[in-house]
Amino acid sequence: MDPVVTACVLIIGNEILSGRTQDTNLAFLGRSLGELGIRVREARVVPDIAEEIVAAVNACRARYDYVFTTGGIGPTHDDITSECIARAFGVPLERNPEAVRRLDAHYGDPAKLNEARLRMAAIPSGATLVDNPISAAPGYQIDNVFVLAGVPSIMQAMFEQLAPRLKSGPPVLARTVSCRVPEGTIAEGLGALQQRYPALDIGSYPYFGVGGFGVSLVLRGTDEAELERATGELCALVRSLGGEPTVTVGQA
Amino acid sequence: MDPVVTACVLIIGNEILSGRTQDTNLAFLGRSLGELGIRVREARVVPDIAEEIVAAVNACRARYDYVFTTGGIGPTHDDITSECIARAFGVPLERNPEAVRRLDAHYGDPAKLNEARLRMAAIPSGATLVDNPISAAPGYQIDNVFVLAGVPSIMQAMFEQLAPRLKSGPPVLARTVSCRVPEGTIAEGLGALQQRYPALDIGSYPYFGVGGFGVSLVLRGTDEAELERATGELCALVRSLGGEPTVTVGQA
Repeated sequence: MDPVVTACVLIIGNEILSGRTQDTNLAFLGRSLGELGIRVREARVVPDIAEEIVAAVNACRARYDYVFTTGGIGPTHDDITSECIARAFGVPLERNPEAVRRLDAHYGDPAKLNEARLRMAAIPSGATLVDNPISAAPGYQIDNVFVLAGVPSIMQAMFEQLAPRLKSGPPVLARTVSCRVPEGTIAEGLGALQQRYPALDIGSYPYFGVGGFGVSLVLRGTDEAELERATGELCALVRSLGGEPTVTVGQA
Repeated sequence: MDPVVTACVLIIGNEILSGRTQDTNLAFLGRSLGELGIRVREARVVPDIAEEIVAAVNACRARYDYVFTTGGIGPTHDDITSECIARAFGVPLERNPEAVRRLDAHYGDPAKLNEARLRMAAIPSGATLVDNPISAAPGYQIDNVFVLAGVPSIMQAMFEQLAPRLKSGPPVLARTVSCRVPEGTIAEGLGALQQRYPALDIGSYPYFGVGGFGVSLVLRGTDEAELERATGELCALVRSLGGEPTVTVGQA
């Protein structure tokens, strides 16, 4: 059995908890890491309170192979992620010369590189920078923790830079079987299928829309042949209940 | 000073962690609870693994005034929230007669109320039902934990039913000052404003879009007069930096 590589996503920011901002970083990281064979096993959203961030970083980095944080690395007073990461690791926060150089080149005018912007060059000692091709201020890696921006376009660009550094597992493959059989009708057979295929993760996601109701049955696993067999059995189950299965590759 | 009423949102489901499904329940609950003066202080997303759910429920219910769970109360094998809630509270899971009656009325045909669907009537002992006006299968409250559906339309309908039961605090009011002053330029003055108004929560959220860049500065608090004063000072700060502030009521 392949060793499973696990990750946790730590979303930092009052604006996510208050509902002002709809987080989309978790879904992006869940999909992108899944393609690399890394399973996101937990996510936490924490406020801009230092003790909360430090505690969450330390709890999560001890439990998972990787932790990805998003948010709180900008120039304003509410951007406190880096000081919290330094505290969590018990290392000093240092002005990183390479980060200063990148900010300097980005702003082009030394007068613009004020104390607030220089906060974005304060990086925990021992961290390795992660490029930010959009707005220069870098993310970084310290041990198994990756510290990324909160703005989705910047976070995604940073992720592309760091992805090659990750230890990946066998990619998580998925098949989705959609049908209009009610969830309560297929539940018994679906549970039996899950028992026959314990290595697969089988989920049932009902939907209700203007086009009527239905259910997406998602099978996930790393062994393609096993996935295909289980998908075939699931299609037969759907047909036996009077449904018309539609199979999609991926978690449609 | 008014006592702050706090909440935690616990999102249960592999599909959120894998990125298959974009969660929107946290943002809805964050906004809706904020309007009632209840602050969401943490959110966690946990997989369909019993030990993880039980541990998260117990950690969160001890720390916050309320916990709201979403997901995992349907009829299929991956719906394990209720058994986990029962384990977390150390109470039996019982077939609730009123829940059975509602399901019976909803399906209209006893043959349809199979074992899988009856799982939706298995409720931890001592819980109080929360109506589900859409698909009958109820949510419930046990102590300070509210157990809700994962499908957003059903979760929202359940929330409307339970909202009057909540102990609420003074509503959280917000003002948003938008401008095109770069974040790094306004950061110093914004930090000083936060120091002058420690009871307010002032956040800075940059945006980058086809219409150019800008920043939304959000002030949140419960004292409207103080909020107005701080908003006025912030507008003056924006103008002193050559910007044009636009004020919106709420967290635009």
